[in-house]
Amino acid sequence: MKITPVKGTNDYLPADTALRDGLQAKILEVYRAAGYDRVTTPILEDIENLDKSDGGDNLNLIFKVLKRGEKLEEALQSGDPSALADMGLRYDLTLPLCRYYANNRANLPHPFKCIQTDRVYRAERPQKGRLREFWQCDIDVLGDERPECEIELIHTTAKALMALGFRGFTVKVNDRRVLRGVLASCGFEPGTFDSVCISLDKLDKIGEEGVRAELNGKGCPESAVDALTELFSGGVTLEKAAARIGDPSVPARLSSVIDASKLLSKGQYEIVFDLTLIRGQGYYTGTVFEIAMPGYRGAVAGGGRYDDLIGKFIGEKVPAVGFSIGFERIFGILKEEGRTIEGQRKRLGVIYEGAFTDALTTAETLRGSYDCTLFEKPKKLGKLLNALEKEGYAGFVYAEAPENIRWFGREE
Amino acid sequence: MKITPVKGTNDYLPADTALRDGLQAKILEVYRAAGYDRVTTPILEDIENLDKSDGGDNLNLIFKVLKRGEKLEEALQSGDPSALADMGLRYDLTLPLCRYYANNRANLPHPFKCIQTDRVYRAERPQKGRLREFWQCDIDVLGDERPECEIELIHTTAKALMALGFRGFTVKVNDRRVLRGVLASCGFEPGTFDSVCISLDKLDKIGEEGVRAELNGKGCPESAVDALTELFSGGVTLEKAAARIGDPSVPARLSSVIDASKLLSKGQYEIVFDLTLIRGQGYYTGTVFEIAMPGYRGAVAGGGRYDDLIGKFIGEKVPAVGFSIGFERIFGILKEEGRTIEGQRKRLGVIYEGAFTDALTTAETLRGSYDCTLFEKPKKLGKLLNALEKEGYAGFVYAEAPENIRWFGREE
Repeated sequence: MKITPVKGTNDYLPADTALRDGLQAKILEVYRAAGYDRVTTPILEDIENLDKSDGGDNLNLIFKVLKRGEKLEEALQSGDPSALADMGLRYDLTLPLCRYYANNRANLPHPFKCIQTDRVYRAERPQKGRLREFWQCDIDVLGDERPECEIELIHTTAKALMALGFRGFTVKVNDRRVLRGVLASCGFEPGTFDSVCISLDKLDKIGEEGVRAELNGKGCPESAVDALTELFSGGVTLEKAAARIGDPSVPARLSSVIDASKLLSKGQYEIVFDLTLIRGQGYYTGTVFEIAMPGYRGAVAGGGRYDDLIGKFIGEKVPAVGFSIGFERIFGILKEEGRTIEGQRKRLGVIYEGAFTDALTTAETLRGSYDCTLFEKPKKLGKLLNALEKEGYAGFVYAEAPENIRWFGREE
Repeated sequence: MKITPVKGTNDYLPADTALRDGLQAKILEVYRAAGYDRVTTPILEDIENLDKSDGGDNLNLIFKVLKRGEKLEEALQSGDPSALADMGLRYDLTLPLCRYYANNRANLPHPFKCIQTDRVYRAERPQKGRLREFWQCDIDVLGDERPECEIELIHTTAKALMALGFRGFTVKVNDRRVLRGVLASCGFEPGTFDSVCISLDKLDKIGEEGVRAELNGKGCPESAVDALTELFSGGVTLEKAAARIGDPSVPARLSSVIDASKLLSKGQYEIVFDLTLIRGQGYYTGTVFEIAMPGYRGAVAGGGRYDDLIGKFIGEKVPAVGFSIGFERIFGILKEEGRTIEGQRKRLGVIYEGAFTDALTTAETLRGSYDCTLFEKPKKLGKLLNALEKEGYAGFVYAEAPENIRWFGREE
């Protein structure tokens, strides 16, 4: 039998699990204080729901669950491989949340401000840093279209990161409608917007000339490529982008989100407009945001507005917006930096020689204040104590009888 | 798109999630205080590991994950349905823990006392009360064969149930080796022990005559059935069972577990020897235990010793024993009884009319002590407040400006 976890999944040692639990508890504390309610949805989801969910590239990364019994027999006989699975493992927490809202909205507050911290799955090619099973921490507001939702999501997500000790990060904000307006004003065809965005997304990596070359290669009109390049030379402010769009309400809304978020940040983190910010998911309709951490590549959090996704379930538009912390990125950074989470209880070793029940009764008197592990006194006590100190034990007591507790070690 | 969760899984509303989170936190607190370390293992497990795991009936209930890409193509062409899956969803937490121990033992304490609270999956026929996705809360001791492990597991599991408000439950204890010794002494063939146990397990339901009839129908020797029936008439004490077994060490060990557990229970719950207790899993080798709650059918917790399971991974015997709380049973009982978990924070509604950023800044000053949700003042304020009171809000503040907080509602 194989002893390693399946590719792309991890076994977490006790110290790692303690860090992960502490991290999650801290994030949940901030989210709950801000008035969001935690809910739980299943990891298993109907395969058709997943397939029709506009999840972009993630739709190619769904783990599918084989049918069982007679239905599997029928599927095998049909010769159609797509009929073999009836369920899949969710690739994010947003699609299940939309289904959940559609199913339970009569029993939910309005607007519904909610938390999900849970596992998601993607059948990535296993390679360094790409997990197939990983956690996300999301907050979402369903049933509210006001920009206040975005302001509060940005503020709360930033607050959670600050509670974990992070400072100086950058929140990038865009609105897909602004980007689409700008591309239209440059003369790109609406059908090519997604393809243009993919090239534009590489600006950091391949530079202006690289983007030009790619767009030309894709057959975009020369004049459109010129207009776009000219716009980007020297950076695109929201004002500059807004000037190219007919309807001023969309950039004005985005501007109000950015201004309020800057005010609330008190200079502890940056808020910037970034016209090149796109985010992969096909279901985003308006605002998109992500958070970059100095010294680390890629985003540590991301999200956006998905006003049309719930409508796919109930045929009625329900505005929605969410922000997701990439839990594994945060865990990786904290682990790399050797950080611990405050507020966890100290651990004592309780060493005994006599009756086990007496020792256990003694340990019980200490368990209101400490986590206590019982150890029968070994021949080499010093070796045991050294090992326990390395594992992070704060001290030891020698329990001869309930009324006779002797302290030794670091904690007296 | 389908709005209901897939069969046998649940959407949990905010109040249910709060109860489940509170429950889990309380159980974890007791487990950690008793010196057990939480670890996390993946939900996905290698399909061969699952298939070879001696999991009894659970092996027929594994959700299988379809292969992907070229490997799926190959499997489809081979025409062998068993080649279609490379992974499965775990059916319990014990098998992944044994693999985890085999993989990580160089970096784990010895003995290893650990906690797992997490999801497991079984492809049950969906029917009332049978979930396909559910949580278990396990504690285990790996690498220690002493009866003290069992005593501490029983004591700690009982303590967790008491922390949740339960009293008067019954811990049933048996040792499979005692049962096998008794069956051998009655004259049953070793090859029929499992089948005899299945009939014996029905004693409560079909009575002595029913069990007799079943055993006769299975072709067991008349004399063995007579001896077994005679033994059971009037109840089987451990002394009576022990008298039929050659090696006295096994019943003596079981007796020491029962006596110490009785002493530690202080009469708050019952500890009884039950020779008919078997537990389904094939991997149990010695002690088995379960907890019954007055007024509720079936077990709310169960476990046992599985000294041979880790050996399947590393070819070297590592003794192991665990006790699992059926989280869903406990949640169901607490929900049915309308109970809440203490120690959760109060929630305030913060109502504002003016600038959102001012209101948010006001709410922040209260969030050290309360969970605060912001609401823009609606035309019908009374209706909103009534709705929030029903959702469990403890009170409201009216935030006109940071320096002007007016309290109203229940909490002043």
